[in-house]
Amino acid sequence: MAMSALLSRADSHYGAPMEKSPLAPAAFPLLPSIAGVRPAVARARYKAWDRCDLTFVALDEGTAVAGVTTKSLCPSPEVEWCRAALPLGRARALVVNAGNSNAFTGHRGRAAVEAIAARVAGAIGCAPSDVFVASTGVIGVPLPIDKAEAGIDAALAAPEASWEEAAATIMTTDTFPKAAATRVVIGDRTVDLVGIIKGSGMIAPDMATMLGFIFTDAAIEPAFLQQMLNAANGRSFSCITVDGDTSTSDTVLAFATAKAGNAPLASFDDAGADAFQAALTDLCTQLAQLVVRDGEGASKFIGITVEGAVSDESARRIALSIANSPLVKTAIAGEDANWGRVVMAVGKAGEPAERDRLAIRFGATQVAHDGLAVEGYDEAPVAAHLKGQEIEIGVELGLGDGRATVWTCDLTHGYIAINADYRS
Amino acid sequence: MAMSALLSRADSHYGAPMEKSPLAPAAFPLLPSIAGVRPAVARARYKAWDRCDLTFVALDEGTAVAGVTTKSLCPSPEVEWCRAALPLGRARALVVNAGNSNAFTGHRGRAAVEAIAARVAGAIGCAPSDVFVASTGVIGVPLPIDKAEAGIDAALAAPEASWEEAAATIMTTDTFPKAAATRVVIGDRTVDLVGIIKGSGMIAPDMATMLGFIFTDAAIEPAFLQQMLNAANGRSFSCITVDGDTSTSDTVLAFATAKAGNAPLASFDDAGADAFQAALTDLCTQLAQLVVRDGEGASKFIGITVEGAVSDESARRIALSIANSPLVKTAIAGEDANWGRVVMAVGKAGEPAERDRLAIRFGATQVAHDGLAVEGYDEAPVAAHLKGQEIEIGVELGLGDGRATVWTCDLTHGYIAINADYRS
Repeated sequence: MAMSALLSRADSHYGAPMEKSPLAPAAFPLLPSIAGVRPAVARARYKAWDRCDLTFVALDEGTAVAGVTTKSLCPSPEVEWCRAALPLGRARALVVNAGNSNAFTGHRGRAAVEAIAARVAGAIGCAPSDVFVASTGVIGVPLPIDKAEAGIDAALAAPEASWEEAAATIMTTDTFPKAAATRVVIGDRTVDLVGIIKGSGMIAPDMATMLGFIFTDAAIEPAFLQQMLNAANGRSFSCITVDGDTSTSDTVLAFATAKAGNAPLASFDDAGADAFQAALTDLCTQLAQLVVRDGEGASKFIGITVEGAVSDESARRIALSIANSPLVKTAIAGEDANWGRVVMAVGKAGEPAERDRLAIRFGATQVAHDGLAVEGYDEAPVAAHLKGQEIEIGVELGLGDGRATVWTCDLTHGYIAINADYRS
Repeated sequence: MAMSALLSRADSHYGAPMEKSPLAPAAFPLLPSIAGVRPAVARARYKAWDRCDLTFVALDEGTAVAGVTTKSLCPSPEVEWCRAALPLGRARALVVNAGNSNAFTGHRGRAAVEAIAARVAGAIGCAPSDVFVASTGVIGVPLPIDKAEAGIDAALAAPEASWEEAAATIMTTDTFPKAAATRVVIGDRTVDLVGIIKGSGMIAPDMATMLGFIFTDAAIEPAFLQQMLNAANGRSFSCITVDGDTSTSDTVLAFATAKAGNAPLASFDDAGADAFQAALTDLCTQLAQLVVRDGEGASKFIGITVEGAVSDESARRIALSIANSPLVKTAIAGEDANWGRVVMAVGKAGEPAERDRLAIRFGATQVAHDGLAVEGYDEAPVAAHLKGQEIEIGVELGLGDGRATVWTCDLTHGYIAINADYRS
């Protein structure tokens, strides 16, 4: 990969256009409108740039909300705000600020979030707790309240935005806008799900927080929407890693407007609930994989499946230990079938594993089994697989039925260039 | 850092000379002989190279031994061998193989370790369990028994080697031989401690296992030596990280020959025991820091001190979370006072921390306190500190008395070059 291309991406911190990730999809997908959801975008000018950086989504009355947030013990005031409002289960608006994460800004950051919620509540006639707020970008600088308020006013007066405009407006160091959609039948109604997401690793001065927003016209009780989002999260956003680092602001919110007219889903006993869960998990997985495809400096997309663990959670931890290993990630960047590094990462995960039962494959080819290299395995298909952009690593532990798949990207000079080769 | 210099180090996998780390000490230290310890080196030719790669250390009768080994659940057969022999507390010989780690080699690997112990036991007249074995290098290839046996025979016939020769012979991808010494008074006797160590991160096809060996002429009961080594390990080898990866073979062994004639130390009630513990901890810290100074691609040595945690162990975990963060390590490589990344790493550690009490310093300069940037702090001393080779990061949590210091290095293009830019 040419260094000039990589540096041009780092330059994007200063406003130059970014080089699109080689793993990006060919085109932005076609997405349906969601009844009861009206996105708009505006220029709050949180940074010295001339792009839209404030996204405002109006939600009709009766919209249910659920959410998952970062596990960081040092979260942003936006995350604290959302955590407090989520148990109420209702939403009327979403505001997303790009360019300033408002994290680590003390009481002034809290004041900014309260001001945003109050401004929106006054304008559309709802409670401040019906307004959800997320911010991403530089940390340590309180979000300027005057810019936020002017941006909100502009967005309220703006025409409806396309999903592509909304997905582009929430970007910071992302190299392409990210969205996905799916559709499911509940009883006699067809409901749509659309998601937009941003995130590409973590970059300073912008911490490339993962912010994801899912919209559906299905009718779902808030507590059940939360239950289904938790389950989907466990198989999607919790199964990706770019560099093992965790933002102070990561947030995924799901909004259900109830406009589709289906009988409201309240539990898995309801017809269509299983199908909706499957669709939601699929959508979240698509969105999560898009974040990995924009991993900083990524040249290869890596799926890691661990089977035969003592539990699914144990399998996930081992898979993440492999996915977060700099040695595994650099080996894949080097197209090196280095199963020794995979063994190392299994061993350090701290989960039950027996060296002499381990089997490892790259693509479809077993390279180690029963604690030993497979003697004389055919290296040609392994080499061909590793030269591709989509890499598969399989680990069989031989202990139980636990299983998990996680996704990551390789670790290249591009990551270092983006994260070290400039000053903030 | 010039790429050509970095690539020449990666080339060392094929036998070319390595570029010495810029963080290496100016010279190998002057070290005393240790009575009862006789090192020798030989060419076993585990790889196609013409260098000594087998170290044999003869230990007089009455030598006590203690050890700590990797926490990996997939350890090498050498580690399993040492774990089984350590409770017996006695040692007569040490064999260290470089170039082949013998890890992940199943029953054939176990057979090689048993053959080495038997060969030495027969030659010097001791039990096989008195023979300690460690190996480092390529994994997945059973250590060739014939080469090991010929190497042992050659070492038995060889003249005594210097500490520098021994330290160089245990190297794999290290760029300089590593050793340290200290001296302490026990009663009316002066005792010496010498340590040699190798390790520089983890590199394939060689996994750059950390192997450390400490020799003293003090008389110490094995169980107490183990207790003191555990304590020293907790403040030294357990406090360093290069890339967060863990070898399947990491081993530190301490041998005490009792030749100094001091009254044997059996507990901290014995005169001189506290002084010996302090000396051992100091020696282990020197050795551990030498490994960090040879971190792959390292251009800066980083000390991270966390204070005010709820316990020392909590402080150590938070400090390691910072030390293992790719974003913190790349920020330091970029000489960027990016305290936001430090906050992020504190937040993801999963240990008690309160965002609004955090204070962070680079060198002697506070850059954040009470959950906010220090307004108008003087950037000049921070910039000057970050331009140096020795970086200090301080975090004050304001919760309790827990305290820990860990050491790491920055993450540079050199790490990627060494780990990705060649094929095994």
